[in-house]
Amino acid sequence: MRGVMMYAAGDVRVEDREMPTIVEPTDAIIKLAASCVCGSDLWPYRGVDTLRRARPMGHEYIGTVTEVGADVTTVKPGDFVVGSFIASDNTCEICAAGYQSRCVHAVGMGAMGTQAEYARIPLADGTLVATPGQPNPELIPSLMAASDVLGTGWFAAVAAEAGPGKTIAVVGDGAVGLCAILAAKQLGAERIIAFSRHADRQALAREFGATDIVELRGDEGAAAVKALTSGYGAHGTVEAVGTQESMWQAIKSTRPGGHVGYVGVSHGVELDGLRLFGSVVHLHGGPAPVRRFLPELIQLIWDRRIDPGKVFDLALPLEQAAEAYRAMDERRATKVLLTL
Amino acid sequence: MRGVMMYAAGDVRVEDREMPTIVEPTDAIIKLAASCVCGSDLWPYRGVDTLRRARPMGHEYIGTVTEVGADVTTVKPGDFVVGSFIASDNTCEICAAGYQSRCVHAVGMGAMGTQAEYARIPLADGTLVATPGQPNPELIPSLMAASDVLGTGWFAAVAAEAGPGKTIAVVGDGAVGLCAILAAKQLGAERIIAFSRHADRQALAREFGATDIVELRGDEGAAAVKALTSGYGAHGTVEAVGTQESMWQAIKSTRPGGHVGYVGVSHGVELDGLRLFGSVVHLHGGPAPVRRFLPELIQLIWDRRIDPGKVFDLALPLEQAAEAYRAMDERRATKVLLTL
Repeated sequence: MRGVMMYAAGDVRVEDREMPTIVEPTDAIIKLAASCVCGSDLWPYRGVDTLRRARPMGHEYIGTVTEVGADVTTVKPGDFVVGSFIASDNTCEICAAGYQSRCVHAVGMGAMGTQAEYARIPLADGTLVATPGQPNPELIPSLMAASDVLGTGWFAAVAAEAGPGKTIAVVGDGAVGLCAILAAKQLGAERIIAFSRHADRQALAREFGATDIVELRGDEGAAAVKALTSGYGAHGTVEAVGTQESMWQAIKSTRPGGHVGYVGVSHGVELDGLRLFGSVVHLHGGPAPVRRFLPELIQLIWDRRIDPGKVFDLALPLEQAAEAYRAMDERRATKVLLTL
Repeated sequence: MRGVMMYAAGDVRVEDREMPTIVEPTDAIIKLAASCVCGSDLWPYRGVDTLRRARPMGHEYIGTVTEVGADVTTVKPGDFVVGSFIASDNTCEICAAGYQSRCVHAVGMGAMGTQAEYARIPLADGTLVATPGQPNPELIPSLMAASDVLGTGWFAAVAAEAGPGKTIAVVGDGAVGLCAILAAKQLGAERIIAFSRHADRQALAREFGATDIVELRGDEGAAAVKALTSGYGAHGTVEAVGTQESMWQAIKSTRPGGHVGYVGVSHGVELDGLRLFGSVVHLHGGPAPVRRFLPELIQLIWDRRIDPGKVFDLALPLEQAAEAYRAMDERRATKVLLTL
């Protein structure tokens, strides 16, 4: 089968790889209906994360189950499924509390390699959620988004305690940030302030529910949020970038006692304890427990109540994965869908 | 009147100071019934915090109102009152949400100097809470504790989401940590794990509700908590020290998705963003909004349902304040009550 390998920074190739097979009795094999490139795939692509050896890429996936291990009971061949980038048993105390991304039996994304025709998904019962039926093709991008960026943005909006009467700020106008805007809107936020400098992303931010756009960054950006909120700051802020500047922009945009939901994978972030102490915010984030939200998100998509697939502004065949990475790296695309 | 001044690290003197007077129409003057030395007073005493000039000390207080400004309506001369170390209007949006320590009109503890016979309390209506009547002398230590260490420990336990069925760990066996144990117990925690190496503090921790004592620190201490909780970690942890080691001890003692309530004033703490991201804890803390909890805490003390005054293991007359500081600095006392 065909699949994407990254050999080094900037070196992405589509190659013949071995067909995945059932290894554990809890595994499932899926035939991908689509895959995509993640913002986090750009960290090694840009050389910010060091790649020690060539590796299969991709951790977002939707598709059809082709085979299951002997212990799998909740999905069967033929089911169309959506899963999260971290496999979980969904039964341990951590999963039961809604933190499947830190399941005690978690299997990380490195094992999946879902930018490919087929993939082995560990802990299928706890990881995969079947859709109500076979999806119409126009639902594919949105279901694909549910696998990571929507689930991650949703978690961030929940962590920021988006809800009725709340003002929520969103730092980051990539796919996750845009999905966090959509989530905040769905969760009932009254006002949503999006930080963005790109006209096309601003337009989608407004379509997803943003009521205000701030083009300033850092302390100036945070000051703009304060100015929009009678000096108090946002009730909650989503951080969807992962840099030192973006973290403090998020914290300083938030009022004392407010909530910061951070999902940008931290790169070089060091939080000064005394500044954080003085901020009196709630800080919560990390790798999103997407599995917690999947049943609800799939239903919202199925019922055409949300259309997060709009974050894909470019679709390319899997064979053109190298171009997909380039387009995202050069910011010609927010997020690229890989079709199969 | 007599009051405590700190001139330099280790140099505490009781001197004649000017009698405080009403400055703003929202002020009240109180005659102190007692005062005390705070763990945070030891930072400048030990030279960890630099003292740029001599300053009046003390920010914990209970006493009788002797005079009020023209705008004060909720307390009157003769009332016995407890207040918080940060004066607040108790009406702004931040106060209304329960974060009076970051009130938009907050007046910090530096202005108070309550290790003295009299003190001026700004924003009296939003800061002071009158007791149901004149307290019996045996209630003085507990009411004194409510002014800071109990309110701070209570906030930390609330931030750690102590409640029925929960396992709560407490880092720090000073007065705040001990009060956090009492708070966790009152809030219904099922199991309370106290970190402590001192026999007398361990005894009080158990009296306040601790079910387990861990003498190890740092990563070993956190591992011990994991071992006591089927490998998961505590549901919530209180951090009441403020050092790099204690912060990570608290974070690592907590399960993914759990809550860390931190109230130790951060000294040299730097939180690595990626480690924090991976922990998936909720982190919340800062200067405690003691005012939020005062009415409830005063009633619990008045009804003899809690006895936080036990954290005072030494009482000295105000005139012996220098010895009070020495006793706490040399760990001969956990917390010293200054009598008047």
